[in-house]
Amino acid sequence: MLGKIALEEAFALPRFAERTRWWAGLFAVDPDKHAAEINDITETRIKYMDKYGVGFQLLSYTAPGVQDVWNKEEAEALATEVNDYVATAIKSHPDRFGALATLSMHDPNQAANELRRVVKEYGFKGALVNDTQRAGADGDDMIFYDQPEWDLFWSTVTELDVPFYLHPRNPTGTIHDKLWAQRKWLVGPPLSFAQGVSLHLLGMVTNGVFDRHPKLQIVIGHLGEHLPFDLWRINHWFEDVKKPLGLKETCKKTIREYFAQNIWITTSGHFSTPTLHYCLTEVGADRILFSIDYPFENFHDACDWFDKAEINDVDRRKIGKDNAKKLFKLGEYKDSSA
Amino acid sequence: MLGKIALEEAFALPRFAERTRWWAGLFAVDPDKHAAEINDITETRIKYMDKYGVGFQLLSYTAPGVQDVWNKEEAEALATEVNDYVATAIKSHPDRFGALATLSMHDPNQAANELRRVVKEYGFKGALVNDTQRAGADGDDMIFYDQPEWDLFWSTVTELDVPFYLHPRNPTGTIHDKLWAQRKWLVGPPLSFAQGVSLHLLGMVTNGVFDRHPKLQIVIGHLGEHLPFDLWRINHWFEDVKKPLGLKETCKKTIREYFAQNIWITTSGHFSTPTLHYCLTEVGADRILFSIDYPFENFHDACDWFDKAEINDVDRRKIGKDNAKKLFKLGEYKDSSA
Amino acid sequence: MLGKIALEEAFALPRFAERTRWWAGLFAVDPDKHAAEINDITETRIKYMDKYGVGFQLLSYTAPGVQDVWNKEEAEALATEVNDYVATAIKSHPDRFGALATLSMHDPNQAANELRRVVKEYGFKGALVNDTQRAGADGDDMIFYDQPEWDLFWSTVTELDVPFYLHPRNPTGTIHDKLWAQRKWLVGPPLSFAQGVSLHLLGMVTNGVFDRHPKLQIVIGHLGEHLPFDLWRINHWFEDVKKPLGLKETCKKTIREYFAQNIWITTSGHFSTPTLHYCLTEVGADRILFSIDYPFENFHDACDWFDKAEINDVDRRKIGKDNAKKLFKLGEYKDSSA
Amino acid sequence: MLGKIALEEAFALPRFAERTRWWAGLFAVDPDKHAAEINDITETRIKYMDKYGVGFQLLSYTAPGVQDVWNKEEAEALATEVNDYVATAIKSHPDRFGALATLSMHDPNQAANELRRVVKEYGFKGALVNDTQRAGADGDDMIFYDQPEWDLFWSTVTELDVPFYLHPRNPTGTIHDKLWAQRKWLVGPPLSFAQGVSLHLLGMVTNGVFDRHPKLQIVIGHLGEHLPFDLWRINHWFEDVKKPLGLKETCKKTIREYFAQNIWITTSGHFSTPTLHYCLTEVGADRILFSIDYPFENFHDACDWFDKAEINDVDRRKIGKDNAKKLFKLGEYKDSSA
Repeated sequence: MLGKIALEEAFALPRFAERTRWWAGLFAVDPDKHAAEINDITETRIKYMDKYGVGFQLLSYTAPGVQDVWNKEEAEALATEVNDYVATAIKSHPDRFGALATLSMHDPNQAANELRRVVKEYGFKGALVNDTQRAGADGDDMIFYDQPEWDLFWSTVTELDVPFYLHPRNPTGTIHDKLWAQRKWLVGPPLSFAQGVSLHLLGMVTNGVFDRHPKLQIVIGHLGEHLPFDLWRINHWFEDVKKPLGLKETCKKTIREYFAQNIWITTSGHFSTPTLHYCLTEVGADRILFSIDYPFENFHDACDWFDKAEINDVDRRKIGKDNAKKLFKLGEYKDSSA
Repeated sequence: MLGKIALEEAFALPRFAERTRWWAGLFAVDPDKHAAEINDITETRIKYMDKYGVGFQLLSYTAPGVQDVWNKEEAEALATEVNDYVATAIKSHPDRFGALATLSMHDPNQAANELRRVVKEYGFKGALVNDTQRAGADGDDMIFYDQPEWDLFWSTVTELDVPFYLHPRNPTGTIHDKLWAQRKWLVGPPLSFAQGVSLHLLGMVTNGVFDRHPKLQIVIGHLGEHLPFDLWRINHWFEDVKKPLGLKETCKKTIREYFAQNIWITTSGHFSTPTLHYCLTEVGADRILFSIDYPFENFHDACDWFDKAEINDVDRRKIGKDNAKKLFKLGEYKDSSA
Repeated sequence: MLGKIALEEAFALPRFAERTRWWAGLFAVDPDKHAAEINDITETRIKYMDKYGVGFQLLSYTAPGVQDVWNKEEAEALATEVNDYVATAIKSHPDRFGALATLSMHDPNQAANELRRVVKEYGFKGALVNDTQRAGADGDDMIFYDQPEWDLFWSTVTELDVPFYLHPRNPTGTIHDKLWAQRKWLVGPPLSFAQGVSLHLLGMVTNGVFDRHPKLQIVIGHLGEHLPFDLWRINHWFEDVKKPLGLKETCKKTIREYFAQNIWITTSGHFSTPTLHYCLTEVGADRILFSIDYPFENFHDACDWFDKAEINDVDRRKIGKDNAKKLFKLGEYKDSSA
Repeated sequence: MLGKIALEEAFALPRFAERTRWWAGLFAVDPDKHAAEINDITETRIKYMDKYGVGFQLLSYTAPGVQDVWNKEEAEALATEVNDYVATAIKSHPDRFGALATLSMHDPNQAANELRRVVKEYGFKGALVNDTQRAGADGDDMIFYDQPEWDLFWSTVTELDVPFYLHPRNPTGTIHDKLWAQRKWLVGPPLSFAQGVSLHLLGMVTNGVFDRHPKLQIVIGHLGEHLPFDLWRINHWFEDVKKPLGLKETCKKTIREYFAQNIWITTSGHFSTPTLHYCLTEVGADRILFSIDYPFENFHDACDWFDKAEINDVDRRKIGKDNAKKLFKLGEYKDSSA
C-alpha cells in the first residue's frame, strides 16, 4: 500500500554518536549501519520511505532517551535540545515528517509546558515517552504517571488535543539488577518492554487517569504490549467476579471501554498476521495503527508484511494511514496515492 | 462434554481455616462459600464434578502455599504435611482424583526427594509450584529454578517422567512493595500473575533448562500467561534478527520448538473463545489442556463455556480430556462417557 | 446491545393465510406459531423487538414471493398489492419500521417504476428480491438480473440511491426437479439458497454490472452465502493466474474491491462467532450488518448470540446498528439507547 | 517443510496430447508449459518436488477425465488404460509416487471391481473421481453416487480400506448450457467446482451413505469446497431447528460428526492462511491435508505459502505429511527429512 504512515520511528542526537554506536553493538546485526540510520533524519529515511511506500513518519527520540536521565535539570535541558534539533531537521519536509515531543518527566508542570511549547511553536503532533522516568540520587526511583500529581500534565495533553505514545524502556535500577541480569536475553523486545508498558498503562486505567481525563488518547506499540491477550481475563476479574470497592470509585468503565475510547495499538515490531487478526477481534480496526520501529526493525520486514498481510483492504487502509491521519491530525500530509 | 479432566484445582489445609477465610475476604464475592469450597476435598467437589461433566481432577495446594514460606525447615515440613494430607483425602476416590506434589523449593535436592517420595509412594501425577520460592531472612529473596543448581531437580522430574505445573504467586518482598501497592488492583489475575510466570518460564528457556532436559514437560495456566501473544516477536528477536552469541549456546532451539516439545497451556481462568482460537493457531490443540482454577473460578463459568465453545469436536476432546490423560498417564481414570 | 437494526425480516399477506400455514408445515417446529408470526406486522413483532433490544426493522415480503409468480401481470399486481399493504401497516410506527420494496422482476422498466413509486411515495428504504424471477409458460425459465437489459433497472436503483437485498429462493422448474428431489434436505438454508445467490451475485460481478453502476449497493444475507470463504480463490483465478481477456473488459476491479465498494453481508440465519470473525478478516466490520431472518429464525437465537458474541464493542456497534443507519439512511429511527 | 505429501496432482494421457494442448489454451497462462507438465509423470515433476520439498505425490488422471465419457464401454476401457499406464509410469519410483484409481462410474459393480484390481494388483492408494458421471444418450444425465445402488461400491471401498477423493468436474449437459454460458467466468475454480462437489457430498451425507458405511473416508479439495463456512448453519437447520423426520432416519449423526469421522479437506488451490485458520477452528488440524493441484496450480504458490503459513509447527507437520501418511498408508514413503 502506498502512502503509509509510521509512528514509532526513532532518531538519535549526532553528538552522542559514540554512545549510539556502542549501544548498537549490543543488539544490532550491523551496528554501523544501525548507527548511521538512527543518526540520519531525512536522507536515508526518505529513500526507504519512497522504496517501501511510506508517505509520512512521526519521529521520536530514541529510547531510553530522557527517561534514562535521573538528574532533573539535565533531563529538561536534553528534552529541549532534542525538540529544537528535530524541529529544525524536518522543517523543510512538512509533507513527509512530523515529530512527537521528547519530554523530561520529572515535573508534571515542566513537562506540560515543554509539550505546549513544541505543539504551539513547532506543530509537533503529540508526545512519546519511554515508560517511567528514572529519578532519585542513583537513578533507582521510577516515576509513574498514573499518580494524582500527574493530572495537571494530562489536562494539558487533552487541552492540546494531542496523543501520547507510551513507549518501553529497559528495566533499570538496583531493584532489577540481579533479576534481569540472570535472564538478560529477556530484557527488551522479548519480554521486559511489554511488562513495563502494560503495568504502566493498566496503572493509569485502574488509578482513574482516563476517568478524570476521558478525552486522553494513549498509543502503545507492539500490538498492545500483551494486553489484548488478556482483555477477557482482566474484564472477568474487574466486572464478572466483583469489581473491588475502591477500584469501582476510580475506574468506572470496563477495560474494553478504555480500549475503545482511549487506547490505540500499533504494529511496531510485531509483524504477525495471526496476532493482527486476533487484535482485530479484540480491539478492532478503528484503533490499530501501522508502525515500523525503525531502525530497530527494518522497512522491508514491516512494509512487505503489512502490504501483503491477509486482511481486507478496508481495514488495511484504516490501519495503514487513515486512522493515523485522523488521530494525529496530519493535515500537511498530502497522500498522493489516495 | 462429559468426562472432562481439570488440572489446576486447589485445596487448603483445614488447620489454616482462619487464615483461609481472611484471605478469601480479600477477593471472593462470597468469602464463606469460597473458604468452604477450598477446605473441602471430595464432597462438594464431586457434586460439582458430576453436575458439570468433570470426570477427574488433579488437586494441588493453594497458592502462594509453600512458596510463601521463607524459612526452609518450615517450608519443607509444610510440603510433607500437605502431601500426606491430600494423599489420604483422595485415597478412596482413585477414579476421580489425583494429586500434584506440593514442594518446598529451597533446596533442589530436598525438592527432588520429596517429589520422588510422593510419586513412588502415593502415585502423585506431577508437581505444582507457585512461581519463585520466597527466601532470605525477611522473605525478600526469590529463588528461580532456571539457574544451574536446579539441574539436579529437573533431572529427577524427567527421570520420574511427570509434568511440572508452574503456577503464579503474588509478587512479594520489599522490592515490589511500593510498585504494586500503588497499583494494587493489578496484583493477581489482572497482571502480576502472568508477568511472574512468563518471566520464570522464559528464564528457563533462555538459560537452557530445556536444552539440558529435553524431556521436561512444563504446564502453565491461563492460556499461557501472555506468552502465545508474543511467540512471533520473541522468535523474531531470537532468530530473524540475530540470536545473541551467548544465547545460542544455551538455547539451541526456537521458542516455537520449546512450545511444541516442552510446554503446555491450560484454560484455567481464561474462558475466552477468541483467545482459545488464537492459541489453537499459535500453540495447537495437541498442547492445550482444559482446567478451571476452582474455587477461584467456578465450575459453571469454566464448563459451560468450554462445552459450548465454538471449536471443532476433535479438538474439544483433545483439550477436554485426551491430552491430559496421556500427559499425566491417568490410567486409573475410567471415562464412562468415552 | 439495545437499539439493534434488523434487515431481513419477513411478513406475509393475510389473504394467503391458508397457503402460508401449509408452507410452514414443511419446515417449522411449530407451524401455527410461525404462521401467526409472519402474518403479524407490528404487534407480536414489537413485543419481541422490545424484549430483545431491536430498535428498528426493515420489513420485506416473504420468499419466494413474487419471484415465484411466472405470470407477468399477476406478478406485477401482487408486488403492488404487497407494497401498498405494508406501507399502510407500518405507517403509524415510522420510528420502528421501514420497508423494502417487493418487485416483480419480469420487466426491468416496470420494476424500476414500481421501485421509484414506493421510494418516493412511501419512503421505502430499498428493495428485496428473491433471487431469479420465474418466467416462461411453465415457470421453468429463470430471469437473472446480470444481463445487459437490466442496466436500466440498476440505473434507477443507484439514481434513487437505495440498497438492493438479493435474497434466496428455492430452485424451481423441471431442470432442477430430479436433482433436488433426490437430495431434498439440501433445498433451502443447508445449501441451495447460498448456491443460488452466490451464482447470481458473481454473475453480476463478472458481467460488469458493478463496473457500469459503481454506486450500486447489494446486500446479501447469511454472512455472504459462502462467498467470503472463496475470496482468495476467486481473486487468485481472476488476478494472479490470468484474468481472461473478455472478463478484463467487463470486470475491471478485483473481487475484493467489489466487496469493499458494492457488497454488504448480513448475519441473518448464521449466528456463528468463528464465521463472523472470519468475515471480519475477509470483509471487514464496515460492511457487515446485523439481521435475524425472522420468523424463520427467532429473536432469541439471533439477539442472544449477537449481544454476547466475542467481538469488540466498536465493531458490535457498527454491525448492530450504525452501518445500517448510514446505508439505509434511517433518519426516522431515534435510537433511545445511543 | 521438507518431505511434504501432495494428493491432488494430475497427469494426462500422451495419446490425447492434442486435446490436452487445446484445453490448456482455455485457461493456462502458458498453455505449452501446462501441456508439457501434465503429460510428464516423473521427470519435471521430481525436479519440482525436490526444489520445493515435496517428498511424495499421489497421482490422478486429470479432470473431467472418465467422468466426461458418457458411453459406458468407452469409459470403462479408458479407466483401465489410464490405470495401467500410470502404474507402469511410477513403478520405478515407489518412494516418490503413488496413484489414485481412475474409475468409470457408470456401473457400481464394475467400478468396484476395477478399484479392487488396481489396489490389489498395483498397490493404488485409493480412488479419485471427478464429481458426477456423465451418462445418457447425449451425456446430459448425471450419475450421483449418493443413491442406494451405490452401496455395493462403497462397501468395496471400505472393505479395501482406501480413501475416495471427490474431485470437481465442469457442469455439463443442456440443462446447464445457458445458465453457465451467460456467466462463463464462474465455471471452474471461481464457483461451479465447489457448487458441484458440495452438493454431491452433502447428498451422500443426507442420503445416509456414511451411516451405512461408517468407515468410509472421503477427501475433498480446495479447503472443503465452501462447506466449512456453513457447518454452523447446516447444523442449525438439521439439529437446532428440527431434523426432519425422513432425514433423521438416514442421517443419524450431526454434520460435524461426519466431518470428524468421514471427511477430509485438502489445501489444493486454496492457499489462504485466514481460510486455513478458519478451517482449523471448524474442521481441525487432524482432518486437513496439504495438496497443490499441479499443474493447474504451481509448486511455488502452494509450497512457498504452506511452508511460511503462520500456523504452529505441530499442525504444519500433520497437515504437511503425517495425516496423509496415516490416511493413505504410505509405507513405501521414506521421509528422509523426518
